[in-house]
Amino acid sequence: MSEIFQDQPERTEISSLGEFGLIDHLTKGINLVNASSKFGVGDDAAVIDHNGFQTLVSVDLLVEGVHFDLTYTPLKHLGYKAAVVNFSDMAAMNAKPTQIVIGMAVSNRFSLEAIEEIYAGIKLACEKYHVDLVGGDTTSSVSGLMLSVTVIGKAKPEEICYRKGASENDLLCVSGDLGGAYMGLLLLEREKAAFKVNPDLQPDLHGFDYVLQRQLKPEARLDITDLLRKAEIKPTSMIDISDGLASEIKHLCKASGLGCQIYEEKIPIDVTTASVAEEFKMIPSIPALNGGEDYELLFTVSLKDHEKISAIPGITIIGHMTENQGEEVMITPDNQYIPLKAQGWDALIKHSETE
Amino acid sequence: MSEIFQDQPERTEISSLGEFGLIDHLTKGINLVNASSKFGVGDDAAVIDHNGFQTLVSVDLLVEGVHFDLTYTPLKHLGYKAAVVNFSDMAAMNAKPTQIVIGMAVSNRFSLEAIEEIYAGIKLACEKYHVDLVGGDTTSSVSGLMLSVTVIGKAKPEEICYRKGASENDLLCVSGDLGGAYMGLLLLEREKAAFKVNPDLQPDLHGFDYVLQRQLKPEARLDITDLLRKAEIKPTSMIDISDGLASEIKHLCKASGLGCQIYEEKIPIDVTTASVAEEFKMIPSIPALNGGEDYELLFTVSLKDHEKISAIPGITIIGHMTENQGEEVMITPDNQYIPLKAQGWDALIKHSETE
Repeated sequence: MSEIFQDQPERTEISSLGEFGLIDHLTKGINLVNASSKFGVGDDAAVIDHNGFQTLVSVDLLVEGVHFDLTYTPLKHLGYKAAVVNFSDMAAMNAKPTQIVIGMAVSNRFSLEAIEEIYAGIKLACEKYHVDLVGGDTTSSVSGLMLSVTVIGKAKPEEICYRKGASENDLLCVSGDLGGAYMGLLLLEREKAAFKVNPDLQPDLHGFDYVLQRQLKPEARLDITDLLRKAEIKPTSMIDISDGLASEIKHLCKASGLGCQIYEEKIPIDVTTASVAEEFKMIPSIPALNGGEDYELLFTVSLKDHEKISAIPGITIIGHMTENQGEEVMITPDNQYIPLKAQGWDALIKHSETE
Repeated sequence: MSEIFQDQPERTEISSLGEFGLIDHLTKGINLVNASSKFGVGDDAAVIDHNGFQTLVSVDLLVEGVHFDLTYTPLKHLGYKAAVVNFSDMAAMNAKPTQIVIGMAVSNRFSLEAIEEIYAGIKLACEKYHVDLVGGDTTSSVSGLMLSVTVIGKAKPEEICYRKGASENDLLCVSGDLGGAYMGLLLLEREKAAFKVNPDLQPDLHGFDYVLQRQLKPEARLDITDLLRKAEIKPTSMIDISDGLASEIKHLCKASGLGCQIYEEKIPIDVTTASVAEEFKMIPSIPALNGGEDYELLFTVSLKDHEKISAIPGITIIGHMTENQGEEVMITPDNQYIPLKAQGWDALIKHSETE
């Protein structure tokens, strides 16, 4: 985490390169690793060939001041995260990300070194996930930084998991643990506020590595979709958890025309997340349900796969689907039935800011 | 052109719908027309199936205050143009656009009606060009409007035209006429300046419909690629003219490792463009060479196709490729040899603003 709160590096004006010079500069040394990447950067469009597979495409926008705060987000982490959250969309379809195209709008506040750092993060993510960066568009903005990430993926038609495929009694499962990314965000916001009051103050983030990493350097759970494939389990429906568990559960239920019951005590929460939540006087299930950006997978599997799914480490069954459309219920340890509300991440932030 | 300088329509706050409500609202009533569009809006990714074809992808960002000025750009035109300039990238590859995904970041200055207008323009372009809108991401911005357009296209592998394929003696051809979009922009800028001085002044744009349309409602020349296909001509290299003829010629020459000679008198310029250029005390070839946004096609064909290409209306041979790499030359009517400079559109605007 030493890159956080780092000094500014040297500064080259972007205008010194020109638009095409900038693209050449940023895409230098990119090697295409996927056979389907027929042609990358350097023409009007990239060429992708996916014979026998289905091609998937998804886009995400990231806007400075809305989706990230450069006060505490290192640029390389920002690039890494921008790529990974899109790979996560492919994982959520049970597909593999294969190519990425980046749109970037930057104001003259940003130096070439700053943009290089963002690209370094994107390239690192591409290397780790075996994805080809095949094109993009870089332009100026009037104020701030904006990233547009389009990811292309592939899957065999019969492997794709939609949100709409769940059936009654299917088991609701999540990968990893939840709420960490949101607690990391609250910590960073707290340090930022403290820094504003006293700029000499050193940030005290010792012992919080896990939740900070969850916020600043999330991963796409393609390892989980691999494990499911190996175990010969095909989820009946799937989504990635970008907006909090409650919101995503409601998406699956709505698309599948079903309801669900989940058990509060089953929601997987890391010990660091729980202790930070306690410090912020929050019940730990709150950031899991309504925090965002964990990028874990939420999916349903048929009841017949109960034994197989239980044998896979890192996956937790949290409940099951019911026939009662529109009734998404959480059962607390003291047996209260609480309707799930999709407060979402934005609402939660506003809530915590005004308190 | 009556939509220009129109009154503001009624206003619904975007926040009243919520993010998912907004997406549902904007994508309501979209029908998929391409067999390759297996799944559109409503999941983590769209699914596209292009068996036997190659899949192409391209992205463009459009930023308010950089790429468009809402003082004189009707929102519906903006949406139309945002889509069409991306379809033009597919035409430039000799491919057909098949799907589009839209990212949109808007500040709270924009009402729901404003965003609907943009989408209405995008949908109109999609209908006209038989392209499916299959997904997107809508988010808030701190200031202004930003659009990210990703287009997916298809082509048979042997039909794709890259920039790099030209050979010595190939004929350099352009479709349509050039410089109009830039003269339209200058007119709109002039009216804006006049309006600032005297807000009671009515815009005087009578008789300028052609160049205004070139600026505000460009088209992608997929009709030209169709004509070439019917005539059994495959361009050896191709690019679309978004930044001015000079800049695009240099791209083709650089990618193909060649030089070229073009003839100033051969550059196709519409009579309205020429007369507006005269009004602005410009030689008409200047906006053609260095203005931007005409979205015509620049391509090379083999000398053996000379007769066939000459028979196609709306295509002009302006010169030929030479072996002299780095030497891109324009020959004037009085036989002067002038090296082509890629001043580009931005430079030209700055130039005209400071004069």
